[in-house]
Amino acid sequence: MLITLEGIEGSGKSTQIKRITAHLEKQGRRCVTTREPGDTPIGKKIRAILLDPENSELTSLAELFLYAADRAQHLGERVLPRLAAGDVVVSDRFFDATTAYQGYARGLDLEVIEKIHGMVLKGLRPDLTLLLDLPPEVGLGRAISAIESGDRTVSESRFEQEALAFHEKVRAGYLTLARREPDRFVIIDATLSPDEVTEAVTRAIDERLART
Amino acid sequence: MLITLEGIEGSGKSTQIKRITAHLEKQGRRCVTTREPGDTPIGKKIRAILLDPENSELTSLAELFLYAADRAQHLGERVLPRLAAGDVVVSDRFFDATTAYQGYARGLDLEVIEKIHGMVLKGLRPDLTLLLDLPPEVGLGRAISAIESGDRTVSESRFEQEALAFHEKVRAGYLTLARREPDRFVIIDATLSPDEVTEAVTRAIDERLART
Repeated sequence: MLITLEGIEGSGKSTQIKRITAHLEKQGRRCVTTREPGDTPIGKKIRAILLDPENSELTSLAELFLYAADRAQHLGERVLPRLAAGDVVVSDRFFDATTAYQGYARGLDLEVIEKIHGMVLKGLRPDLTLLLDLPPEVGLGRAISAIESGDRTVSESRFEQEALAFHEKVRAGYLTLARREPDRFVIIDATLSPDEVTEAVTRAIDERLART
Repeated sequence: MLITLEGIEGSGKSTQIKRITAHLEKQGRRCVTTREPGDTPIGKKIRAILLDPENSELTSLAELFLYAADRAQHLGERVLPRLAAGDVVVSDRFFDATTAYQGYARGLDLEVIEKIHGMVLKGLRPDLTLLLDLPPEVGLGRAISAIESGDRTVSESRFEQEALAFHEKVRAGYLTLARREPDRFVIIDATLSPDEVTEAVTRAIDERLART
């Protein structure tokens, strides 16, 4: 089973993923957490290129292919072997992030993005995608506090420097995707307290597991 | 005008490119040489991932996307602006190398490769592609001598470590491409002496320029 978490900066994905793992392990399930970009050793090198603020010359299309390379590596080396072993794989972002960020927000051709996804995923779809939805001003405010308190490094924050308007588009893109695939997506109100979000998230997972 | 040089390891592309530049500059043309992968600062980082022998886990598909990322960056940052400025651009390898190496030799889906080329090139085609053709045993022999004499570093040689059979497939792939587009390709016998190769190469370029 493949579960993906999506959401803009500051939506609380990292916190929730730790709690999801604890929840699943309490049920006796083997659970692997992973993330895009940068989960594999090769992916880390790709992530370094993507997030380096010095690489401001990076063209949108080159960026798209770097994400595709990371994803292909991530799938081949991490996700598919764990799924084949029967584990639950929980991924911090997956291909929907590319559609939302590069497609809806940055304006890259959605058809090109879809074609690349087809090449990489070869029909694989997450069983459940949890969209932690909240207004960008709330999310970015949280993300900036985390940087100031030293939880994250400034070098990780190229995207966080981008305008609020951009993140509004990302959010709208995610919501469009969620409405298009209501069976796969569950939209969670991420303005709630972390405990309330955890409750909604674990409920969605348990309901999905009950259907398997 | 865009001229590309293709050929397996040891076919003498680097030597010929220097001579082509000298030849064109003597004619009073502005000429830029470039290469794939790794011509731009971002491309250098991508090239480092592609050629590092430690990255043996790299999946074929991730490799394909890394080449695509490098090419998109190379086109956007280097090739298109120089072509727009009216320069002659001479590239050491271009998209045909991906078709020959990843497609014909490594066996990746040629249709997928074609689709990615379509996304990256958006209709751009080299005006002239010079294929420096020679048997792999000759080319690899030359490449190994160059390593031993210190002209190239061993870290550049991941591909050179691969079997002769692989390079046979690359060569056959290149020849298939050349036969398919006889107007664009000129096949040069690279077993000839460097001077003889230069003569054939500059003749092909001058003929192509006369047609413009």
